[in-house]
Amino acid sequence: MFHHTKKLQFEARPEQPDPVYARKLQELVGGAYGEMTVTMQYLFQGWNCRMEGKYKDLIMDIATEEIGHVEMIATMVARLLEGAPATETARAVQDPVLGAVIGGMDPQQAIVAGGGALPNNSQGVPWNGGYIVASGNLLADFRANVAAEAQGRLQTARLYNMTDDPGVKEMLKFNLARDTYHQNMWLAAIEQLKEDGLEDTVAPNALFDDEFSEHATSLWNLSEGNDSAQGAWARGTAPDGRHEMGIVEQPEPLGGPGTTPPPDPELFATYDGSKKPADPKLSGVKGMVGRLKEKAT
Amino acid sequence: MFHHTKKLQFEARPEQPDPVYARKLQELVGGAYGEMTVTMQYLFQGWNCRMEGKYKDLIMDIATEEIGHVEMIATMVARLLEGAPATETARAVQDPVLGAVIGGMDPQQAIVAGGGALPNNSQGVPWNGGYIVASGNLLADFRANVAAEAQGRLQTARLYNMTDDPGVKEMLKFNLARDTYHQNMWLAAIEQLKEDGLEDTVAPNALFDDEFSEHATSLWNLSEGNDSAQGAWARGTAPDGRHEMGIVEQPEPLGGPGTTPPPDPELFATYDGSKKPADPKLSGVKGMVGRLKEKAT
Amino acid sequence: MFHHTKKLQFEARPEQPDPVYARKLQELVGGAYGEMTVTMQYLFQGWNCRMEGKYKDLIMDIATEEIGHVEMIATMVARLLEGAPATETARAVQDPVLGAVIGGMDPQQAIVAGGGALPNNSQGVPWNGGYIVASGNLLADFRANVAAEAQGRLQTARLYNMTDDPGVKEMLKFNLARDTYHQNMWLAAIEQLKEDGLEDTVAPNALFDDEFSEHATSLWNLSEGNDSAQGAWARGTAPDGRHEMGIVEQPEPLGGPGTTPPPDPELFATYDGSKKPADPKLSGVKGMVGRLKEKAT
Amino acid sequence: MFHHTKKLQFEARPEQPDPVYARKLQELVGGAYGEMTVTMQYLFQGWNCRMEGKYKDLIMDIATEEIGHVEMIATMVARLLEGAPATETARAVQDPVLGAVIGGMDPQQAIVAGGGALPNNSQGVPWNGGYIVASGNLLADFRANVAAEAQGRLQTARLYNMTDDPGVKEMLKFNLARDTYHQNMWLAAIEQLKEDGLEDTVAPNALFDDEFSEHATSLWNLSEGNDSAQGAWARGTAPDGRHEMGIVEQPEPLGGPGTTPPPDPELFATYDGSKKPADPKLSGVKGMVGRLKEKAT
Amino acid sequence: MFHHTKKLQFEARPEQPDPVYARKLQELVGGAYGEMTVTMQYLFQGWNCRMEGKYKDLIMDIATEEIGHVEMIATMVARLLEGAPATETARAVQDPVLGAVIGGMDPQQAIVAGGGALPNNSQGVPWNGGYIVASGNLLADFRANVAAEAQGRLQTARLYNMTDDPGVKEMLKFNLARDTYHQNMWLAAIEQLKEDGLEDTVAPNALFDDEFSEHATSLWNLSEGNDSAQGAWARGTAPDGRHEMGIVEQPEPLGGPGTTPPPDPELFATYDGSKKPADPKLSGVKGMVGRLKEKAT
Amino acid sequence: MFHHTKKLQFEARPEQPDPVYARKLQELVGGAYGEMTVTMQYLFQGWNCRMEGKYKDLIMDIATEEIGHVEMIATMVARLLEGAPATETARAVQDPVLGAVIGGMDPQQAIVAGGGALPNNSQGVPWNGGYIVASGNLLADFRANVAAEAQGRLQTARLYNMTDDPGVKEMLKFNLARDTYHQNMWLAAIEQLKEDGLEDTVAPNALFDDEFSEHATSLWNLSEGNDSAQGAWARGTAPDGRHEMGIVEQPEPLGGPGTTPPPDPELFATYDGSKKPADPKLSGVKGMVGRLKEKAT
Repeated sequence: MFHHTKKLQFEARPEQPDPVYARKLQELVGGAYGEMTVTMQYLFQGWNCRMEGKYKDLIMDIATEEIGHVEMIATMVARLLEGAPATETARAVQDPVLGAVIGGMDPQQAIVAGGGALPNNSQGVPWNGGYIVASGNLLADFRANVAAEAQGRLQTARLYNMTDDPGVKEMLKFNLARDTYHQNMWLAAIEQLKEDGLEDTVAPNALFDDEFSEHATSLWNLSEGNDSAQGAWARGTAPDGRHEMGIVEQPEPLGGPGTTPPPDPELFATYDGSKKPADPKLSGVKGMVGRLKEKAT
Repeated sequence: MFHHTKKLQFEARPEQPDPVYARKLQELVGGAYGEMTVTMQYLFQGWNCRMEGKYKDLIMDIATEEIGHVEMIATMVARLLEGAPATETARAVQDPVLGAVIGGMDPQQAIVAGGGALPNNSQGVPWNGGYIVASGNLLADFRANVAAEAQGRLQTARLYNMTDDPGVKEMLKFNLARDTYHQNMWLAAIEQLKEDGLEDTVAPNALFDDEFSEHATSLWNLSEGNDSAQGAWARGTAPDGRHEMGIVEQPEPLGGPGTTPPPDPELFATYDGSKKPADPKLSGVKGMVGRLKEKAT
Repeated sequence: MFHHTKKLQFEARPEQPDPVYARKLQELVGGAYGEMTVTMQYLFQGWNCRMEGKYKDLIMDIATEEIGHVEMIATMVARLLEGAPATETARAVQDPVLGAVIGGMDPQQAIVAGGGALPNNSQGVPWNGGYIVASGNLLADFRANVAAEAQGRLQTARLYNMTDDPGVKEMLKFNLARDTYHQNMWLAAIEQLKEDGLEDTVAPNALFDDEFSEHATSLWNLSEGNDSAQGAWARGTAPDGRHEMGIVEQPEPLGGPGTTPPPDPELFATYDGSKKPADPKLSGVKGMVGRLKEKAT
Repeated sequence: MFHHTKKLQFEARPEQPDPVYARKLQELVGGAYGEMTVTMQYLFQGWNCRMEGKYKDLIMDIATEEIGHVEMIATMVARLLEGAPATETARAVQDPVLGAVIGGMDPQQAIVAGGGALPNNSQGVPWNGGYIVASGNLLADFRANVAAEAQGRLQTARLYNMTDDPGVKEMLKFNLARDTYHQNMWLAAIEQLKEDGLEDTVAPNALFDDEFSEHATSLWNLSEGNDSAQGAWARGTAPDGRHEMGIVEQPEPLGGPGTTPPPDPELFATYDGSKKPADPKLSGVKGMVGRLKEKAT
Repeated sequence: MFHHTKKLQFEARPEQPDPVYARKLQELVGGAYGEMTVTMQYLFQGWNCRMEGKYKDLIMDIATEEIGHVEMIATMVARLLEGAPATETARAVQDPVLGAVIGGMDPQQAIVAGGGALPNNSQGVPWNGGYIVASGNLLADFRANVAAEAQGRLQTARLYNMTDDPGVKEMLKFNLARDTYHQNMWLAAIEQLKEDGLEDTVAPNALFDDEFSEHATSLWNLSEGNDSAQGAWARGTAPDGRHEMGIVEQPEPLGGPGTTPPPDPELFATYDGSKKPADPKLSGVKGMVGRLKEKAT
Repeated sequence: MFHHTKKLQFEARPEQPDPVYARKLQELVGGAYGEMTVTMQYLFQGWNCRMEGKYKDLIMDIATEEIGHVEMIATMVARLLEGAPATETARAVQDPVLGAVIGGMDPQQAIVAGGGALPNNSQGVPWNGGYIVASGNLLADFRANVAAEAQGRLQTARLYNMTDDPGVKEMLKFNLARDTYHQNMWLAAIEQLKEDGLEDTVAPNALFDDEFSEHATSLWNLSEGNDSAQGAWARGTAPDGRHEMGIVEQPEPLGGPGTTPPPDPELFATYDGSKKPADPKLSGVKGMVGRLKEKAT
């Protein structure tokens, strides 16, 4: 269960309205790496965490903080839109300065939200759940979290360079700092997982004996030129300490041709009858039922 | 420019058809962490890489490999669907074994694709470009790549446990191994970026002096309980070597209330007139034009 | 079955072209509360209505009218785009007035539609079926219809204030009036449902004895401050006449901790083995089959 | 800013696992009228509310409660999936009872979430921001809120009838009750808006003098038959008290034919040259610039 | 403007309910090539047609027919769902026959639509406007229409083979016939466009002198093997009568390396400074403004 | 499996940067008819082709070429963005020429991609798999391919007219030529299918005897006026040589009223009990199980 306090985690007050920037800031509200994403990603990871204790608590701490970040940015957007010339189309085109402002605005912030933030990115695409991941495997998820915080800090840094409003910059300095800490924090949490013996370097920490180890070591040189042989990824011990890394200079396919089986005639795929019909014991209705029943006995 | 060879990178031949599994395998074709995602993510990263040489070459090597992975899985899907009882609805419900098979199938694989793979995930949601990232910042992107390979290997490992077909398992062992190498490889590439002095631990490697360093160090304890204080993320030097990490046990908001400004009356937001109108010099049409023009001089 | 007459329900003729406004008007074509939404929402409600007679007839009347509203707005968009400077990029940037116009245009109206309307909103997002609802419960659906007409009239009113073209305003006056009637009409239809004894105030009109009535009465004060105690929702008889409304000033959680069960080891969720395994009689393959079969006997 | 307590608002503990039902319950997590929708809808409405005091406080109370509802349902999903036979494909088809279970499961709950909830609906479609509305007009938004709670309670009631697990039913009784209160509450809030003189019956409470009042009163009988004339919506005073309602029995179009203007030749729309070119003073590059400049003087 | 008659264009009455088939039929309601697609595609093409007369009339005839096709299929879905065991989860798993039925059902048809059709495809993905095209170029659009009718008839034919219900088959025989006529009709309309001298074989019928004619004639043999040289596409006169077709057996790239320019330092793309800075006269703020202004004079 | 060469298929070098045009060009990257679409459409068609030999080889040739087209356009976008004034918001509005440029830019190209191409269309909507089709029926798919190349060439032609940069025009001349060849090529491939006796004019080439031939011949005149009777589609032999085409001047519905069955009471659809309950032998749990079991014997 959650509680809300009326104060913002950090002040979000621009010195002056700037409706063009209000559109750009939507990227941090509802973009793929905006605050809605980290909020939902961490909430679902926390709710789905299989161990009580420090990991689940950490995830819920940050998830709860991130709801407040959406709040801060959404508030900033509404303030940046104060007095925005949304209804001044006609007059606007007479004044090129105002025209440029209107050309760069998000029309939905006026028409749909009445001068507030939308759950969308800077191009108007609604946020969606496909942006997040909560797999239950903490190593895989913490790597995704470092990545999300890295992209988030990068976009914040770019937006920081797109304004000279002291109030906006003040808030973004706080966001930059939190993104720095959160990157460090998830990296430290990955180390903690190793220290606790729960996961290792590669996710998931399982099945290594089943996989083909000879294919777990080398770069396939499939793009012309061999500059890629010059990198640390093509020599020495792998970060997981299990493999020696190398390169396949002239890679050849290991499989046969990518042929497909003859089609089901009732589905009308174009076909010249050239392929040997499947073994009726293996396919078709009778084959399948027979095979399954055979297994069942 | 690209060339295609007719052989698959690795064999993709099931011992027997299994239409229920063919649906599950769609997750590796068109899911958020399927092969279409890594293909497109690496292609765009490669095309947008700002430096000729080993990094761009590496990215294009792997991107080109991944197109062939989509090919392998799509071929496997078509082969798993050979003789699938797509048109046996009526008869199926008479035989519960067959009925269970049909209940677990993807109807679009028959109706839309005629017995082949779709550019969708295992629940039928089409792949979309919102799954990928190519930011131009190689540290941020390589972190996203490690994360993608980790989720990809995790899903492959789960799917490996969902079949006992030797042919399917054979192919998945190859995929597991490549995902192991690719995780190691992107981790090694992150180290190479540091070694080359191009990036550091936190992305982007900039603006640290601008951000509020006092907020770049500590966990805000916003979820009840303090188990999260027990982790490596709440003490010691941060992974970036720049900060000492700690915890704010009883966090208080630093900002003021999240109030919003008075609305534009022409947009009909509900309003009681209680707020002081904005300074006309700052907002509204005249204010904005005036302010901008003032700056221009 | 449907018939089409070539005349528009109401005239849709701008005095002058205005390509910037043509983009904004897309919100009324393919936005979440545009004419495509009410068209499809009412059509599906009508087709799925379980009673012949006045309700189904009403819904189909309005659904059929709304197809004609999409027609009116789409025609208006094409006329607003007449002579639009879509191919004048180069010359445009020389003239700031023209540049501002082009900056505010929808590039797809030219590139994709050749100067016509698109099935998209004002930010270019395609209309989708997730916007509509047709639940079969007329009370729930009529409430959604009132809401849709309210948002539709609101957006129309905002757009009305964004133009001074007499032809556009003429058409929007008609749309405003229809939205007024449609709001009144759905509100009257809700009263009619009550009068006919088919539904009551709360949807669905069922399960009140099953639900926990003590939790059907009060506001949980989960946001700091108690201004919310001052509203009509926190005292007196509820609109449904069944409950006395109140407030829980200091709400405490009623449930236990949000823990999750131990994971399936074959799915590789991170786990320290700390939880008691589930009762094998209840979970896992054998447990589930056993339990279900037990029920069956 | 927000805080989190570890206990759930209400207990969410099934008596026994049921993976088929776990899929259906996804509708209440990430469906169009699930808990993610009301959470985000109320948060954005609250953040964008223009008046401090009881309305904003109410909205934030409920928004904060709803985050906890997502938490309850997500926890329930994970518990319903305990011991789910996700990896038993092969054995499953041998046992028709188990086969039926697997046929009805959500494969992504295993492959993607490792046995937990997803931010998706019951068919696997990710939640998206297009489901919510926060317009700034409280009357329009509260009508949308009543509608959302009505659909939410309806879906909950249907799901209540789809299980006989006492633990699941216990939680749903709580959800039903909250949905009852929330419907009453938003209805009461609409009355409060009127009482406070802020809004009236039709949203927005404006432009009535501008609109064509003769078109704000009557049903157009566009679907064959005249049963719709029998309803309360076709006679008497409208709910807003402003209009007398009636019916247009034989509606005729009021506009002219839906013709479109001649196309821009550089966009290659098919055209026979049959239409009079637009007045060059009105359209085309020169016309537009001239017209706009004329206005500016 | 449109009118509705209460009778269906053709009878849509199954002999018996079949909820599994009701799900599959959703593909014809809201799939990429379902009836919603042709309805909306033809409506927008008609509204955007630049010539009054036979073409616009034809398009509006068919568009209006297609609305009635959505009506027929939606009605069929509701009838197929009569008495569906939506709320019988618990009992269902006891009876494998019933279990198989439930495993193959669409849960949203019950939970969301109360036993009716949804605006979704057979996997639950909502219909969206990205499926349709209305470009204003009739040749390009009629080709898209032939393609849509071909895919539609193909899917209908597959669904025809998936049922043995005489009532369903009766309706599908009508749909198959209409799809046959519509394919013929759009093919005839393409010939009519040529006969009327409005378009030719290749769309758009323009710019042929501008394009590089030497690249408009030959197949690039980029996939291993040269079977593709055996087709009619690699020899003889092209269908447009303008080109002789051939093959490039050993294609070589015609362009230079796909390098990218040095990045904007304020956007933090990873960069080693290795590239020559752009000519300041061409890029950057000053360059761009200078260049544009130069043009303007 | 695939290989990559570092050179582009054709040069993609603008004479000068143009960030406004870089946004428009996104339509050819990730629009519904952009290069990502044809790439993925042809890849899936090739992987799913049921016949080895010339058809599969042709499809894979073109699919492989199209990956290189995405590469060319993505490279062009990055070069058009060189030195783009992304971070010059503040200064921009002072200079109307620069302001117009910024108003027309895609903010995500800077914020998300660091000055490169995105997998999105010109309005920022991500590419998705719903744009493509690979049905297994080559006639249906080749018709879709002609349509895709026609729309692609049309959009390219429009974009050709939106720039005067010689470098951009040079590349587009190549693209126009390839689109011309590809249209001719798919048309020739359709003729080849007929010549090889694999398919005919109407897709699929089956079920003609099953369908109602009397409904496969005529236009239903459902839109007012009879101009549509003047076209080649309303007289003479149909393109398939099987039918004589005509028109139904005064079409009457052939089906009965679109009524729906009584609802399942447990799903709470609004209902007055007016309909005869379904035959219990046909519907409901018992009816369905009984009926199915009866069939099984």
